Amino acid sequence: MALSGGVGGAKLAHGLSRVLDPSRLAVVANTGDDFTHLGLAVSPDVDTLVYTLSGEVDPERGWGRRDETWHFMEALERLGGETWFRLGDADLAMHVERTRRLAAGERLTAVTADLARRLGVAARVLPMSDDPVRTRLQADEGWMDFQDYFVRRRCEPRVRALEYAGAGLAAPAPGLLEALRDPGLRAIVFCPSNPLLSIGPILAVPGIREALVARRAPAVAVSPLIGGAAVRGPTAKMMRELGLDATASGVAHGYAGLIDAFVADPADADLAYPRGLLVHAAPALMATTGDRERLARAALAAADIAGRNRSG
Amino acid sequence: MALSGGVGGAKLAHGLSRVLDPSRLAVVANTGDDFTHLGLAVSPDVDTLVYTLSGEVDPERGWGRRDETWHFMEALERLGGETWFRLGDADLAMHVERTRRLAAGERLTAVTADLARRLGVAARVLPMSDDPVRTRLQADEGWMDFQDYFVRRRCEPRVRALEYAGAGLAAPAPGLLEALRDPGLRAIVFCPSNPLLSIGPILAVPGIREALVARRAPAVAVSPLIGGAAVRGPTAKMMRELGLDATASGVAHGYAGLIDAFVADPADADLAYPRGLLVHAAPALMATTGDRERLARAALAAADIAGRNRSG
Repeated sequence: MALSGGVGGAKLAHGLSRVLDPSRLAVVANTGDDFTHLGLAVSPDVDTLVYTLSGEVDPERGWGRRDETWHFMEALERLGGETWFRLGDADLAMHVERTRRLAAGERLTAVTADLARRLGVAARVLPMSDDPVRTRLQADEGWMDFQDYFVRRRCEPRVRALEYAGAGLAAPAPGLLEALRDPGLRAIVFCPSNPLLSIGPILAVPGIREALVARRAPAVAVSPLIGGAAVRGPTAKMMRELGLDATASGVAHGYAGLIDAFVADPADADLAYPRGLLVHAAPALMATTGDRERLARAALAAADIAGRNRSG
Repeated sequence: MALSGGVGGAKLAHGLSRVLDPSRLAVVANTGDDFTHLGLAVSPDVDTLVYTLSGEVDPERGWGRRDETWHFMEALERLGGETWFRLGDADLAMHVERTRRLAAGERLTAVTADLARRLGVAARVLPMSDDPVRTRLQADEGWMDFQDYFVRRRCEPRVRALEYAGAGLAAPAPGLLEALRDPGLRAIVFCPSNPLLSIGPILAVPGIREALVARRAPAVAVSPLIGGAAVRGPTAKMMRELGLDATASGVAHGYAGLIDAFVADPADADLAYPRGLLVHAAPALMATTGDRERLARAALAAADIAGRNRSG
């Protein structure tokens, strides 16, 4: 099982789906970035996972669809509609169909499973919850919604605090806790996603952190930071703004009690990691599909060793 | 002022907008074809009018947008969504934006006026009502919604009865009755639209028929039938199925009391028309923009003569 946010996490999830039997892989997706836009239910991380796992993703951007067209957005702009969040013509089908099915009473988990299956995804993409959880950020100018911060404001505001609104009342997605507790589960992989924006919301859903603490399977995290910088996105900047140690070591400390192993880039091999944590060095930049597979194998190898240590 | 349905009516409305000061032209649009599709508020006749008057319309189909792409539909098909009603990528912007604004509490009249203005339409496109009116048809297999009949079943079922559901509770759009009663109104033009499916719903909104009966301005109808056949659509077939006289004369009789003049194609000049009706022969097929302008001028000339007869 993997826990993942968007682009970076999805790349490792893709690697895992290629080195494992994908039908035995479940990827828990952050839904803290979900929002209603233009009246449509948009689930950015779920879709990035689905597109990446299906091979539909745009290889340059890392999100959205390859060979996408933007005629809807151009027409919307002429009509005076909101165009700061870009929805491609084909991508739009996901949002319209999801919105329609949710309005008809289906659960996000079921809709996601069906849409992923139709796009040929063999792995299970599991939203963390069917209930709304909304990541919000406090900046100097006040609280703002995630997409306002992330897309409209390009992560520029200085973040003073985070909240996962609704998390306290959310239930884990159907089957999620059962999958975590499955005696046959080989490993739990924290993908190289933002610990605050992508993994944090998942851990905030009551029951998930507890199940991870009580895990039987070994858990491994892959660092989203290399040499103190994020490959993409505001991870390092935000960690610094919140007074955290913005290094691979800081990420590992943040997952204390939840992981048995940690995969860091060789550049970060000499940092001070928590005592007792098995640290495995492997190139953490995923430029090619081969990189994804190698990093996936490294994460699984680290988890396997940690698992033998735990049971030994 | 013109009363219009979709393609055929929109062509004459376009002609009127070119031979008159378009800022003084109001076109009342049938909304009996409106429906919610994929969760979106779709107003086919309103949009056909807006696209035709703005020059955005696809010249071959007569509806939808020129240079349209269909990537949304292709993606939706892969997701197992409903694709029997085709929505182009750019066209979709109208439905998404209208749906969003209606959900935010705006009225259809205001949303339509703004979207039309943004596309450069100088004439006023006025939905017949802000309240839902839904044309339904009774076939041998039972009652069906308009789009099921019109698009999905391609007008094949034999129609036994029609209803305009909700019309009894609908109010005319804001400003519509005032515009009809305006002492400065030159003419009321019934566009060559289906009298049952396009003009019928407009007349079914309480207050509109009464205002037309009490009109001060002369009213003229342009025949949608030429030689007993519709240029497009099921007008003649449906009139026959309902036991009506499926000719230009039958249409004119159907508008008894509501019109002062009637424009028929020269092919239909010798039919028996209602006594006292001023019948004007003019080529009713509109293949070119010039045809639209000529037919618009003919309709206005007939109305002007009828107006002089009325006041004389």
